[in-house]
Amino acid sequence: MSAPIYLGVIGVGGVGTAFLQQLARLPNAPKLILLARSSQTLLSPTPSYSPAIPATDYQTASSTPSLTKSGALSPEEIASFLSSAPGRSILIDNTSDPKLAASYPVFLRKGISIVTPNKKGFSSDLSLWKDIFSSAAQGNALVYHESTVGAGLPVISTLRDLVNTGDEVTRIEGVFSGTLSFLFNTFAPVSGASGAKWSEVVSQAKELGYTEPDPRDDLNGMDVARKLTILARIAGLEVQAPDSFPIESLIPTELASLPSTSEGTATFMQRLPEFDAQMAEIKESAEKEGKVVRYVGSIDVGKKEVRVGLQKFDKDSAIAGLKGSDNIISFYTRRYGSNPLIVQGAGAGGDVTAMGVSADLIKVVQRLQ
Amino acid sequence: MSAPIYLGVIGVGGVGTAFLQQLARLPNAPKLILLARSSQTLLSPTPSYSPAIPATDYQTASSTPSLTKSGALSPEEIASFLSSAPGRSILIDNTSDPKLAASYPVFLRKGISIVTPNKKGFSSDLSLWKDIFSSAAQGNALVYHESTVGAGLPVISTLRDLVNTGDEVTRIEGVFSGTLSFLFNTFAPVSGASGAKWSEVVSQAKELGYTEPDPRDDLNGMDVARKLTILARIAGLEVQAPDSFPIESLIPTELASLPSTSEGTATFMQRLPEFDAQMAEIKESAEKEGKVVRYVGSIDVGKKEVRVGLQKFDKDSAIAGLKGSDNIISFYTRRYGSNPLIVQGAGAGGDVTAMGVSADLIKVVQRLQ
Repeated sequence: MSAPIYLGVIGVGGVGTAFLQQLARLPNAPKLILLARSSQTLLSPTPSYSPAIPATDYQTASSTPSLTKSGALSPEEIASFLSSAPGRSILIDNTSDPKLAASYPVFLRKGISIVTPNKKGFSSDLSLWKDIFSSAAQGNALVYHESTVGAGLPVISTLRDLVNTGDEVTRIEGVFSGTLSFLFNTFAPVSGASGAKWSEVVSQAKELGYTEPDPRDDLNGMDVARKLTILARIAGLEVQAPDSFPIESLIPTELASLPSTSEGTATFMQRLPEFDAQMAEIKESAEKEGKVVRYVGSIDVGKKEVRVGLQKFDKDSAIAGLKGSDNIISFYTRRYGSNPLIVQGAGAGGDVTAMGVSADLIKVVQRLQ
Repeated sequence: MSAPIYLGVIGVGGVGTAFLQQLARLPNAPKLILLARSSQTLLSPTPSYSPAIPATDYQTASSTPSLTKSGALSPEEIASFLSSAPGRSILIDNTSDPKLAASYPVFLRKGISIVTPNKKGFSSDLSLWKDIFSSAAQGNALVYHESTVGAGLPVISTLRDLVNTGDEVTRIEGVFSGTLSFLFNTFAPVSGASGAKWSEVVSQAKELGYTEPDPRDDLNGMDVARKLTILARIAGLEVQAPDSFPIESLIPTELASLPSTSEGTATFMQRLPEFDAQMAEIKESAEKEGKVVRYVGSIDVGKKEVRVGLQKFDKDSAIAGLKGSDNIISFYTRRYGSNPLIVQGAGAGGDVTAMGVSADLIKVVQRLQ
């Protein structure tokens, strides 16, 4: 009934692979005509844009006969390929590449919609944010990025619904990092029973794959700061950059100058125990007030304040009671009054992040049809 | 740029009035051409369908010059009026009228989309549910009903995203009634400090306007059962009717035969203290296990079981810690594993219910454009 819609997908890592599995099972899925990993690209041959690429892992897809194979293409080349397809097209960016994100306006102005869990486009300089949304309007294209905050949890969509229907969001607060949630739920549980040292908890999380390969990428708070930047902008604050507000880093000052190499990471992990007493003191000072310490982000819309860092919480609070690596996000608004609207659950992981991407894709397809 | 979209609104009670206020402030709002309350209808004159009706309360709107005024119109007449408008049209049903809900297929087959907080269409006989969605497909029309469960909370949309992206929902559990949430949070708080008798709590809630005019309409559990019916059907269970599963009524058997008149209500409230000892016993038996009693609904998708009634919860559980008249809904799925995706917040009230309607309307307009 409707004209076919064409799809390009970049990135076949954890999220990208989970997304392809979900795409393969979507009814009325758009036609996959471009699939790219870092140095290689699969394309449906022009001018027919047929056959479509099967939604499987890259290796299997690449064995499909009669697909065009190429090295890495520039964003301009990809945009040109997609916009020449005989119908509306959508680009899914399943990378965390800042360069690709900086090119979203190129795609959008050509009428190519964007769906992505990549935070970079929405949390870097404010000028890029503005360029993305004005380019989308200009190209009559759509931008959906639910999975940039809280993975598949309905965070962005809920905030947009609040704003679009005229509610006044006064405050947003929560635990926005699955990694830091796990670290503090383990280090300072509500039961108070953990005797684990901070450095041990970090090591354990690293071994379990709960942290980035370099745990400093979690501990520096920048991932949380990027998420807060996105939410603050949707709530109406003109946050210039993800580091234009206070961010409490959990990397000790003494270790801040270690290089971002694997040797740097090794030295960091080796020297982290020197700071266990410091973290124990923070934990115990909260304990004395009957509280627990958590790493949170908060946005006070009225005061135009964004903060990321450690905070003490009553043991019976929702934030204190969080389990595993769950996120929790509380929206305080005029309509909801003193009890916030709360969304809680796993905020990281390939499957749930891909779910946010797939759900966005379905909505974009529905709007383009 | 886009063709205009036309809107008919039925119902100007609490939700209807709050909705009209939100509609008045929506950018790119569709053109309001029909506004109806129980016995009266305002219409934009045909064939021009102009001027539009201002989005204000009924009384003010009715003083607009050159509108057509009529008595109550039948669903068929309304459908005929809307489908003759020179563009796509949407009907907003802000009533709780089962007759209007039974007519949704008439509208949908004529291509008129439906947005509503009215539970009746989706929670009555399964045949009506099926007729609604097959009529929508036939008429290429849309049906959005977020506010039928949890008011403006993202419950329906979240469940549909989970299902549509191929997750397997195994269990849904929660507190689905703001009224029953308030009653039990007050009667059996986690602190255990309340000495209030059950009948006193019910009287207080009635005076505060937290219950329906006849509190038996809350206490019989049917409102919760209707919400569970809707969620269970979206999750894939063929629930025949809202009373085709166990519903624990909080109306004592001895009072079940009182008539549904205001005299019946008065007698019910007067005799309720006779059952205070019974409710105190339920509360104390939970206390002895270190738990609190709550009125919850649950759906076990695998076992195809739906239940509504009292249940005991650990004091540190999210359900026990609920405040005020908040709802909480937990989705257990394959992807989310042992920690559910949770949505929590006010699940009743004119403003937040209207917000769900407005957010749905925005989405329908985006898809029709």
